[in-house]
Amino acid sequence: MSYNLLKGKRGIIFGALDENSIAWKTAERVHEEGGTFVLTNAPIAMRMGQIDVLAKKTGSEIVPADATSEEDLANLVAKATEILGGKLDFVLHSIGMSVNVRKGRKYTDEKYDFTAKGWDVSALSFHKVMQTLYKADAMNEWGSIVALTYMAAQRTFPDYNDMADNKAYLESVARSFGYFYGKEKKVRVNTISQSPTPTTAGQGVKGFDGFISYAEKMSPLGNATAQDCADYTITLFSDLTKKVTMQNLFHDGGFSNTGVSQEVIEYFSK
Amino acid sequence: MSYNLLKGKRGIIFGALDENSIAWKTAERVHEEGGTFVLTNAPIAMRMGQIDVLAKKTGSEIVPADATSEEDLANLVAKATEILGGKLDFVLHSIGMSVNVRKGRKYTDEKYDFTAKGWDVSALSFHKVMQTLYKADAMNEWGSIVALTYMAAQRTFPDYNDMADNKAYLESVARSFGYFYGKEKKVRVNTISQSPTPTTAGQGVKGFDGFISYAEKMSPLGNATAQDCADYTITLFSDLTKKVTMQNLFHDGGFSNTGVSQEVIEYFSK
Amino acid sequence: MSYNLLKGKRGIIFGALDENSIAWKTAERVHEEGGTFVLTNAPIAMRMGQIDVLAKKTGSEIVPADATSEEDLANLVAKATEILGGKLDFVLHSIGMSVNVRKGRKYTDEKYDFTAKGWDVSALSFHKVMQTLYKADAMNEWGSIVALTYMAAQRTFPDYNDMADNKAYLESVARSFGYFYGKEKKVRVNTISQSPTPTTAGQGVKGFDGFISYAEKMSPLGNATAQDCADYTITLFSDLTKKVTMQNLFHDGGFSNTGVSQEVIEYFSK
Amino acid sequence: MSYNLLKGKRGIIFGALDENSIAWKTAERVHEEGGTFVLTNAPIAMRMGQIDVLAKKTGSEIVPADATSEEDLANLVAKATEILGGKLDFVLHSIGMSVNVRKGRKYTDEKYDFTAKGWDVSALSFHKVMQTLYKADAMNEWGSIVALTYMAAQRTFPDYNDMADNKAYLESVARSFGYFYGKEKKVRVNTISQSPTPTTAGQGVKGFDGFISYAEKMSPLGNATAQDCADYTITLFSDLTKKVTMQNLFHDGGFSNTGVSQEVIEYFSK
Repeated sequence: MSYNLLKGKRGIIFGALDENSIAWKTAERVHEEGGTFVLTNAPIAMRMGQIDVLAKKTGSEIVPADATSEEDLANLVAKATEILGGKLDFVLHSIGMSVNVRKGRKYTDEKYDFTAKGWDVSALSFHKVMQTLYKADAMNEWGSIVALTYMAAQRTFPDYNDMADNKAYLESVARSFGYFYGKEKKVRVNTISQSPTPTTAGQGVKGFDGFISYAEKMSPLGNATAQDCADYTITLFSDLTKKVTMQNLFHDGGFSNTGVSQEVIEYFSK
Repeated sequence: MSYNLLKGKRGIIFGALDENSIAWKTAERVHEEGGTFVLTNAPIAMRMGQIDVLAKKTGSEIVPADATSEEDLANLVAKATEILGGKLDFVLHSIGMSVNVRKGRKYTDEKYDFTAKGWDVSALSFHKVMQTLYKADAMNEWGSIVALTYMAAQRTFPDYNDMADNKAYLESVARSFGYFYGKEKKVRVNTISQSPTPTTAGQGVKGFDGFISYAEKMSPLGNATAQDCADYTITLFSDLTKKVTMQNLFHDGGFSNTGVSQEVIEYFSK
Repeated sequence: MSYNLLKGKRGIIFGALDENSIAWKTAERVHEEGGTFVLTNAPIAMRMGQIDVLAKKTGSEIVPADATSEEDLANLVAKATEILGGKLDFVLHSIGMSVNVRKGRKYTDEKYDFTAKGWDVSALSFHKVMQTLYKADAMNEWGSIVALTYMAAQRTFPDYNDMADNKAYLESVARSFGYFYGKEKKVRVNTISQSPTPTTAGQGVKGFDGFISYAEKMSPLGNATAQDCADYTITLFSDLTKKVTMQNLFHDGGFSNTGVSQEVIEYFSK
Repeated sequence: MSYNLLKGKRGIIFGALDENSIAWKTAERVHEEGGTFVLTNAPIAMRMGQIDVLAKKTGSEIVPADATSEEDLANLVAKATEILGGKLDFVLHSIGMSVNVRKGRKYTDEKYDFTAKGWDVSALSFHKVMQTLYKADAMNEWGSIVALTYMAAQRTFPDYNDMADNKAYLESVARSFGYFYGKEKKVRVNTISQSPTPTTAGQGVKGFDGFISYAEKMSPLGNATAQDCADYTITLFSDLTKKVTMQNLFHDGGFSNTGVSQEVIEYFSK
């Protein structure tokens, strides 16, 4: 179904790896809603994924970029505005990776080189993306920038490790940059705090299945899927949400405001 | 502009007084988006306002109801589903009134009969509306209920008086009822925490002009207008936000997450 | 153990029923720390409890008062300052009761007379207490007022019913009144959001045992006990926390900021 | 005045530069309350400050350490437990510095080497301190770790620049590490979100005077001073707050929950 919500709008979508990715689903929905965009991902992620399939399906071009590299980002923004024929209206940042998690380091046994790398990729990259856009004056007024985050930024989930701290930093960047981008260029910046989602990346986390099952039982409407998230992101890119900025928006079937559900408490009531 | 976001959807809109009302603007936008609805307001508010004009313009019927009366609400819900030809998909609660404010009582000199009346009208009415809908099983699955609120529920604005406490109660009702309505009937419940808005009701508050001006200077994107709020509400009624529930959503140009703006600090820097 | 933290300080303690009560434990600790106070409770609660034992133990007098009655409260404040020989330095509000819970009404089937009664007793009473103190100018500068609350004000716990909404209102009253009491009389007002506690009142709630067990497993330091809460309250009554006001302070072994614990997730990982 | 609240307790205090420092005032108060400690600061900060005076006054030894160096921290912890004769009961982290701010870079024009350095010093150092303590098993059960932070972690203050993001990361580290330290060793971890304070470091920030004045007018009890913060920190180090963990505690005279004050709104009401 399409509402033409993004007709004539141009953007960049970071982080589509394969069809389980939230960024992938979002790209499909943006396309359906009439938006055009450039796809981008880190060179290494591109080799592992199937982004070509998505590009073909949505008539999009791909411009590889390491989101930690100011040079790559400047190139990406320049190419994207050229390819799309004008300034941008939307950007999706869906990038995250913890080296500590990948290497099996516990949170109380971090290797700080790993921590710094993960912070750069997962959190600072969002600042770099926006600073690049800002300096190039590449966003139209009332444009919308969205990054994906997770509630571990507010409450501890033991297996989420240093990604929790990265997400807290990312959400702060949304507020801080959102202030300046709003005041000076009327651009809005928000984060979506999404349910745990069985993406290819997410599934690598230890204990992910148990966690998905717990979250499903805790959320009155059940977990939000990648498809649901794509739908929600569309609304934030549209002209209907122009005054929403500097917010962290929970998209989680009610998990965030459920202290405990009846289903969960029953495990502890015997 | 219309996207047909609400085609085929039915609902009830509480609280349209005149063309400055958020509920009025929302009714117009719902109509543009293809939704049909019944308008309602308290008998006394109807005499003061121009709801007939709105009804004519949107092809809607009016069913008067005192939102504190379970009987009136039961009648309203029965009539609405009959008039609209089926269960409901959306409800807007835009009701609030403090007798203490009207009578010029300070927060430290409340008259508790006034307080109880204001609480019943402004806060408990939201529970009554939902309990009536719930008992009548009058909402479709994935229906959406929205109430309007204000940030005074989180932080004190001296002139907002006991409405702050009423709004805190209202937001809690959204979470509490949202849990049950979500689990049992897949209905979502949220509140929109809107910028101060120069409605006919709002303008009655002492010092409102100064406050509007302050909020405008504090908000990176400026205050959200009633029209902006109507647009945002449309997204929450649509099928694109199905997994958003039990949330209080700030719609305020960034005010809520701005500690201080450059413009405001300059008043204090001499 | 005693530090003489409250030497020379005078106050009122509401809500000591029996030795399981948080108010009871707090009274004992205040006494140990050198404070003097008047004990009060509703006439009906006094008949059910053993407040006489506590009064004797702490050398305190009892002044019965229905905390919903302005008259009773005015009498209490007048008597307390007379008995104690001066203005007050601290007040503890530990009062809560839901008629809907007692009568077994579900949250989606509230009887609104019950709701109004519970709101008056559990939430509005806090405003009434403070307005009475304020009008009588009965608090010393830098005095401290504390009310007990529960995290259901932020997130839904299904069995907590309408007490969630009452606590949200209570916490808002703390902020709203705290603003005026701070500005005008240098009095601070806070709420403590305490772990579920097996008081005589708490134990009446359906499913309370399961819930205590769940909270214990979720809280990195375990649940805070009534005794722990008494200790914490002492710090808020002392001169060491003079600039803490309008806050809701979680005292819960870390529950509030734990998304899920390892122990809990294991129930869902098979 | 002294209550002997910290009699027999041992700790480390980071960040005392001169008598305006919060860490300095805290060291004095800990000493008065019977605690013993090692003072530490970065070698460069020590050259600029007067930490020797404080050491003499409180009978403490100084062990220099760069808080970004794991080696320095391991040495510090080993020395401190040796000097003090046992495991530690409290630690104060009062460290923060933004190179971008120092070099006059705007938030939308960050130099990322500067950003990384500031993050390491201001935010990651807190993790490094705790990981060092944890691995050395250097904290007693029910020990207390406190870091100082600022509300810019939640809301944007334009001149606070990338320190906002650093503080958001720091607060997340408090929650994340607090979970593990609580579960495994019964150690609590919290942050104090302090009023803007005219320390030697703070005064360097552009527009600081205007900001102090604004905050003073916004806070019902006025800004909390460094001395007030020292008092408050004492309560968090004491045995009276054993179940408070993973919290960010606002110590700000009510600023954080004041939407606007009467004094401030009057500037906008003419």
